[in-house]
Amino acid sequence: MRSAYVNGLYLPHGQAAVHIEDRGFQFADAVYEVIAVQHGHLIDREGHFDRLERSLSELDIPMPMTRRALNVVAAELLRRNSIRFGSLYIQVSRGTAPRDFPFPKDIQPTLVMTAKRLKPFDFTRQAVGVNVITIPDIRWKRCDIKSVGLLAGAMGKTRAQAAGAFEAWQVDDAGMITEGAASNAWIVTADGVLVTRHTDAFILAGITRQTILKLVADEGLGFEERAFSVAEAKGAREAFTSSSTAFIRPVVRIDGDAVGDGRPGPLCLKILELYGRYMEPRA
Amino acid sequence: MRSAYVNGLYLPHGQAAVHIEDRGFQFADAVYEVIAVQHGHLIDREGHFDRLERSLSELDIPMPMTRRALNVVAAELLRRNSIRFGSLYIQVSRGTAPRDFPFPKDIQPTLVMTAKRLKPFDFTRQAVGVNVITIPDIRWKRCDIKSVGLLAGAMGKTRAQAAGAFEAWQVDDAGMITEGAASNAWIVTADGVLVTRHTDAFILAGITRQTILKLVADEGLGFEERAFSVAEAKGAREAFTSSSTAFIRPVVRIDGDAVGDGRPGPLCLKILELYGRYMEPRA
Repeated sequence: MRSAYVNGLYLPHGQAAVHIEDRGFQFADAVYEVIAVQHGHLIDREGHFDRLERSLSELDIPMPMTRRALNVVAAELLRRNSIRFGSLYIQVSRGTAPRDFPFPKDIQPTLVMTAKRLKPFDFTRQAVGVNVITIPDIRWKRCDIKSVGLLAGAMGKTRAQAAGAFEAWQVDDAGMITEGAASNAWIVTADGVLVTRHTDAFILAGITRQTILKLVADEGLGFEERAFSVAEAKGAREAFTSSSTAFIRPVVRIDGDAVGDGRPGPLCLKILELYGRYMEPRA
Repeated sequence: MRSAYVNGLYLPHGQAAVHIEDRGFQFADAVYEVIAVQHGHLIDREGHFDRLERSLSELDIPMPMTRRALNVVAAELLRRNSIRFGSLYIQVSRGTAPRDFPFPKDIQPTLVMTAKRLKPFDFTRQAVGVNVITIPDIRWKRCDIKSVGLLAGAMGKTRAQAAGAFEAWQVDDAGMITEGAASNAWIVTADGVLVTRHTDAFILAGITRQTILKLVADEGLGFEERAFSVAEAKGAREAFTSSSTAFIRPVVRIDGDAVGDGRPGPLCLKILELYGRYMEPRA
């Protein structure tokens, strides 16, 4: 039977619950991470834990347990659910307290973990091009905090789905793409330069984004971290998205307009290959 | 023992829970209302229900039950908790579904209600002036939807509390005050004009705000619905806040600067008196 972890207990998934006055439920006063599992390993685990710590710290929520303990719980949850390929979801909320806006003091954070099985990474499946649409970015101004305040993202993904697209790229008031509803956005410009937006309060510093930049640098390939407009993206040679569990997906159409020749581009496929190799277990 | 209502059941408050995959907990995909209870009556009940319906409709979430049924549950919850003066909290989330960004179809909304006892409205206590601070408005661009995505508001109220203030008034990029973290903002200008911000996507259309406008109009007093700057507020004769459960509070300092003579203003006190009378049971 599927198990979930809630505040010290491994529970049957269907019975896993939090109190109605958990601040995650009443105030979106909670943060989360989703980590890919490949060959039983948590991909970029330390990067995700670093970001979890940072999100919590920005909100003055203490870590619910040490990293070592988080590792133990994660491993046990994967074991109980027999998951070697899939994803691990970690949510930490400030905890339960009588409803009141200010952060209450001295309460215990709520820690929830779930795990689910997914198909293993498969280059051929990943290499299929996807469409994206562009939508106004209506999110708050602290997107660097990975909070569960995801309603704008859920609305965006719903619009994308209705349009037959994989993702919605969000556009700020200046016409620049910030990021996807649940992924980072990349282009290879008409001049062949790999570009992804710089990190600031308006996007989440993607862990997969960071890993791609490292892999690209290791290959001696250049890149720029800067904002790019919808027009530049539509005139790009290539485009793609990155996220921890959808990995890398070539983008072949933006708002219905073909990117480049309308097929997955060579640099994107090269990076996808590098990323697939990166996730293989090392000797 | 204190009771809460969750999806058809009246439960001991301490045992009232929602599933960890409730979208209210994982995506802030939920809306809410807080209604004042005076003399056993829900103040502006229909206005709150109208707004609840609108918030849900904007998010394509169905009403969890008819208004008549909501009324029955609310009355029963007040009865079980013996509450004649206090507040009723209603939260509706999209429901529980395996975690995925797009709105899932055909799931049952989650309905949670809690009630708590508060002191009856008291003119003398309400008439005590409070301080506010101003902070940047970092919220999303759909503040007209009363969603539980309240982390920015919680951060703002925490800052206010740390500064010894009652409320934080949020300021947009143009230097205009939008609203408080959990209340609407009002001033009486240097020229004696009552002003509160017009409603649009950047503020919540307060029910108490709307009632005040009606009461003021009934008295033949004028008002303007328009944006005002921090400078105009600091140079105002009077200022005050309004919300459903804090009612009306005179604001006597903004960022430490005295408003007018630093004491609750006559128009604010007049409106407070009208509002108190409005909440008395009618024959």
